[in-house]
Parts: sequence; C-alpha cells; structure tokens
Amino acid sequence: MNNFDFYNPVKILFGEGKIGEIGNEIPKDALIMMTYGGGSIKRNGIYDQVIKSLSAFKIIEFGGIEPNPKYETLMKAVELGRTKKVDFILAVGGGSVLDGTKFISAAIPFAGNDPWDILKKPGKIEISNAIPYGTVLTLPATGSEMNMYAVISRDSTTEKLSFGHPLVFPKFSVLDPVVTYSLPDNQIANGVVDAFVHVIEQYLTYPVKAYIQDRWAEGLLQTLIEMGPKALTSPLNYDVRANVMWSCTLATNGILSLGVPTDWATHTIGHELTAFFGLDHAVTLAIVLPSLLRDTKEEKRQKILQFAERIWNIKVGTEDRIVDEAIEKTEAFFQSLNVKTRLSDYGITKEQIRPIIQRFEERRWKLGENKSIDSERIQRILLASI
Amino acid sequence: MNNFDFYNPVKILFGEGKIGEIGNEIPKDALIMMTYGGGSIKRNGIYDQVIKSLSAFKIIEFGGIEPNPKYETLMKAVELGRTKKVDFILAVGGGSVLDGTKFISAAIPFAGNDPWDILKKPGKIEISNAIPYGTVLTLPATGSEMNMYAVISRDSTTEKLSFGHPLVFPKFSVLDPVVTYSLPDNQIANGVVDAFVHVIEQYLTYPVKAYIQDRWAEGLLQTLIEMGPKALTSPLNYDVRANVMWSCTLATNGILSLGVPTDWATHTIGHELTAFFGLDHAVTLAIVLPSLLRDTKEEKRQKILQFAERIWNIKVGTEDRIVDEAIEKTEAFFQSLNVKTRLSDYGITKEQIRPIIQRFEERRWKLGENKSIDSERIQRILLASI
Repeated sequence: MNNFDFYNPVKILFGEGKIGEIGNEIPKDALIMMTYGGGSIKRNGIYDQVIKSLSAFKIIEFGGIEPNPKYETLMKAVELGRTKKVDFILAVGGGSVLDGTKFISAAIPFAGNDPWDILKKPGKIEISNAIPYGTVLTLPATGSEMNMYAVISRDSTTEKLSFGHPLVFPKFSVLDPVVTYSLPDNQIANGVVDAFVHVIEQYLTYPVKAYIQDRWAEGLLQTLIEMGPKALTSPLNYDVRANVMWSCTLATNGILSLGVPTDWATHTIGHELTAFFGLDHAVTLAIVLPSLLRDTKEEKRQKILQFAERIWNIKVGTEDRIVDEAIEKTEAFFQSLNVKTRLSDYGITKEQIRPIIQRFEERRWKLGENKSIDSERIQRILLASI
Repeated sequence: MNNFDFYNPVKILFGEGKIGEIGNEIPKDALIMMTYGGGSIKRNGIYDQVIKSLSAFKIIEFGGIEPNPKYETLMKAVELGRTKKVDFILAVGGGSVLDGTKFISAAIPFAGNDPWDILKKPGKIEISNAIPYGTVLTLPATGSEMNMYAVISRDSTTEKLSFGHPLVFPKFSVLDPVVTYSLPDNQIANGVVDAFVHVIEQYLTYPVKAYIQDRWAEGLLQTLIEMGPKALTSPLNYDVRANVMWSCTLATNGILSLGVPTDWATHTIGHELTAFFGLDHAVTLAIVLPSLLRDTKEEKRQKILQFAERIWNIKVGTEDRIVDEAIEKTEAFFQSLNVKTRLSDYGITKEQIRPIIQRFEERRWKLGENKSIDSERIQRILLASI
C-alpha cells in the first residue's frame, strides 16, 4: 500500500426529507446566493422545498449554469456575488452546478487578476479564501458533492480544465434519493456509468496490496451493476435510488484512491470529446473506457483478472480470454443501460477526431497510472472507439 | 436504507515515515501536552521520532495512561493541562491513550463542576469547547484515531462509560504501520478481534437494503480474516500490517454504520467483563460475541445467512446448520489468533458473573438492534460463555 493523506470534512445529510434541515447548517444572518441550472428544479418541486427550508434567510438567485459549466457563465455569478457581498452559496443541482459553484466560491474572493488562472495555473496561484457553500444534489453521478474537485469549460478556447482545493469542499451536501425520481432515464444511466468509471479508474491499475481499497471498489461496482438497471426499470424504488446515489458519492469522495495508483486517462480523453463534440460526460466515458482497457490490458492484466473473477464471475478460459471477456461484459453493461459505446453511434468520424489528437500532441501529456498513454496511444484508442 | 448524517473531519497521515510530518499539522507556537501510556514508546523509538519531529515546539509530557484509561489518572492530566495552559495535545499510543486524551481534551475547558458528568450525563451537559489534539497511533484496534468516541473507566465506582462529541474528533492521526512491528502478538491479535467485532456489530443486524454498507463491511471482514493470521506469522510484512491498521480505522470511522441498524450489545456486555475482571477489551468481545450470536440468531438470521455465504463460503446445508456453522467459524477465527473464547479459560465461574447481571438488572437497559437483549438474556449469554 502506498503512503497517503486523507481529509474530507464534508457533512452529508442523506435521506428523504433532509432538504428540510439545511437551514440548521447555514450561519444565521447569511446572505445566500442560490445557484442552479436550467430551471428543472422549479418544475419538479425541489426549488420550493429549498426556499421553504430557508424561509429565515435572505436569498439571491443565480440560475442558468449549463451542463459542462462555462467559465463565461460562472463569471457572471462571480460578479453578482462580489457586488452583493454574499456570505454563503447554496448549489442546487447536479455535478455541473456543483462544480460551477466550487469555481464561483474560489473566484469571488480571488486576489489575482484573472480567475481563469485558478484552472489554468493550478499550484502556481494561491487560493487563500473561498465563500463557504452547501449543496442539494439533484443528479447522482460525479460525486462533486463530497470532494474538492471541479471541471470547468471555456468556450472561447474550447478548453475543459479541472482544479481542486481543500477550501472548496462543500460545508454540507444534502442527498435525498426522492429528488432523483423525476430524472430522465438517460441522466440516471449516465450517472451510473460515470460512477462505475470513477471506480474503475481507481481500481484497474496495478496491484499494490491495498486489499481493502480493492474490496471497497468491488463493492461499489457490484452495487452499481445490481442497482443500475433497476434504477431504470423501477424509478420509484427508494432503496434502489438510495444505493445508486450513495455509490456515486462514495466513488469519488477520495476513499477509494488512498494508497493506490490511479488512472484517470479515460476522463481526460473523455473531456476532450465533450469539449469538441458536446457529448454528455458519461457518454464519452462509455466510449473511451472499453478501447482504453483493450489498449492497456497488458499493463492492467493482474487487476483485470481479479475484476473478471470477483465482479463478472468469469473463472474459465485462458487468461487472455478472461481479460477480453471482462472488458466485453463492461461494455455490454453500459449498453444495457442504453448508453452507446461507439463514436460512430453519434456520427463522429475518424477525420473529426484529428484536432483532439493534435491537442494531445501539443500538450505532450502522458496519461494513466504508468504515464504511458501518449498522444500516439490516445489516437489508437480513439480510432478503436469509432 | 435509513436516513443518516455523516461528518468526519479527521485528517489521516498514513504510511512509513509520516511521524516526520506532524510538525506541519500543529499551530506554530502551540504549547503541546504529549500524552502516552506505560512508556513502551520510549523503548521502541516512537518517542524519539515524535520528539525529533516536534523539535520546534515546547512540549510537556503526561505519561502513565493505563489500558482502559481511568478517570482518576486522566484528571491529573486535566489539572496539568489547566495549570500549564496547553494549546494542543498530542496523544501517542493505542486506543486507551487516545480515548483518555479525548476526555482530557473535553475536560480541560469543561465549565461544569464535575467532569465525570461528561461520561455520566451525555446529552444533558454541554461541551462547548475542547483542546485540539492529534494522535500518533501505536496499536491498531479501536479506531479511536478517526472517530469522536471514548470509553473511560472509573475505579471508585467500577464503571466503564463512553461519550462522544464532534469537538473531540482528532485534528489529525498518524498511522505508520512500521510502529506496529514491535507489538506483542497478543496485542495484534486483540486488535484484529476488536476490529472484526466492530464490523460485525454494524453488519449482523437486520437487512435494510443498504447494499454498499453490507459490501464494505464484508470487505473489511475478508481483509481481517486474510491478514490477521499473517500479521502474527509475518510481523515485519509492511503490507500486511498496513492492511490490518487501515481496516481497524475504517471499522469505526462511522462509514459502516450509516443508514443501518447497529447492535453494540457485545461491546456493552464486554465492558462489564473488563470492569469486573480486568480482561482485555478484545478478549471480552471474543467471549461474548459467539454466545450472543447464538442467542440472537433468529433475529439476525437473514444477515447471518448472507455472512455465511459471502464471508465463510458456506453454501450447503439447512439454513439452521449454515447459521450455526458461520458462528462456529467466527469463534474458530478468534481461536486461530490465540484469543480464547470462554470465561472458564480465564478461571471465571458462574458465581462471579452475578454482580454483572445484577448491574444490568438495575440499569434496565435493553441492548441490541431490536432493544431485545435485557438482563435475562444477558444472563443466558454470559452463562453460555462460561
């Protein structure tokens, strides 16, 4: 097991009715900026629940944070927050609203000239303050509600970059499985795929004798495999939705990656597919992961064999065949949730992926747990994903 | 899945050499009170490592905190801390030193007349302040290093009581598996039993469709079963010790009990065996648990069947036989670690347990996840443990 540090001070309020308790978690007399997305919370009643719960507070609103939240949009919230001198932010939404709010929280008091530096120059600029915030999660997927990371896009440069800082952990996050009942099927399916890939990227690397982390990763994968399809066929089953929701949070609250190598290449490549083609985040993961696993199966062999046996119960066949079958079953799992796994399913051709390869060539990034995935391999992986 | 709240702000520094980093975690200019036990840390080099790491700080020492830490001893540390006006406490030891330090941390600034009220009147007295503290764990077992609970004994009344408060979470805990190399076998074995029973008490209750919590509990049990014996036969195997150490912490950091019923009857009964006979904490658990499971096997049937299949791989036989076999295997696991499972192994007779039964009769406590374990059942369980 590798050395590690762990710190996660987010308070979780989990369960039906928990939105009613958020008033207790926010400092009295705080001026709250409530951030949200396209307005679905006004149609499904979540907005009303939140407003009722915060009747003792003064609230200003900032709606319209889009999926893959844009720097350009978020800077308007930063301006609003600065002008009104907000004391607390309440993010009501999915991963995009939460990620966007993390950026807003850090950018409002940011002392530098250009808040884009928070994303562009991580580690080189100082974040010494952040507006405290809480979240009401409406879409289980990214785990943003219990970590300190955010991914932000910028239209003007077609960039999608991430940052993380201990000051942008949420103070609290409310997870009420009931709020997910009204979500469209594809968003639930996307959430399950996103969480599944998050776990895989912390689990399918090379073994370091971190037996607990392996078992816990496997426990989440098993739960997602069992609950994911049921979340689509029985959308009003509270316990199914509760297990999906909690799985998504635990997949990225940091506990799985302690003391183990992590990959994250699928996410990094996927971000570019979103930046260039506007594909849903989870869709890009379902496209990239199978090809990436095939391309890295020698490096990941030992863990894929464990994954094959413990998760997919594959026990017979040559090692090569077992590895291939585990990857096939993973791809089939995504498809069983009606998430497509090929670029061509979205009409994307070989020619269209060239700018992505070019960008990786320029960046000279080496991805994956072994830093072995260079632009050449990324090209091969993307071509195999057509 | 039941509703739950979760909050755990403890920073964990895990791995070889991490003692060297504690200076970064303590406020500059703090006057530190270092608490420890019987002095083994001076013989095995841990004391020197800590002192070296804190060379920039002023330190006063309070040694001599005994196993099952005593109120009478701890109050001396409270007096010292008050007199010297300490700003920070560093607990270096096992669960007893850590639990004792939690009490010291809360008692130094306690505004009430009698600090014993912290234990005697939980919820009825106010803890509004605590001296911040960190820990260097020397004995993996109780998980005290990552939770807000402590168990304290009082000689004058033969009581062993617990308290918990969010203000007594450690600020940080250092877990270096290397420091466990010099532990005697029986302490390692006790730690494995303690952690195993902690997991069981959050897992073997009644099912509430909390599938992740089940899987994670099972993951820890499997790891303890695989690593426990190896920790005795290969005491210098870093990865074995690391997995045991991290399992012990995760067993009681709160994450397993979220949204599920918990039992804790074994611990509550075991505490009395320690209070009356001075038995090691883990020894009392190894004695009580098998009899308790046999006495409650109808209430726990569904989960014991799951435990039998997933942990002990028992798949054939009648349900009754499977349940019995799972309990037998659990008892045999404790014995395989050379931890005895009978009161008679320690020369304790039927007559001697009468005062314990009397005390439970007076208290009229109903223990267990169903509040169904009354003094009559406790008598039956203890008699079956002879």
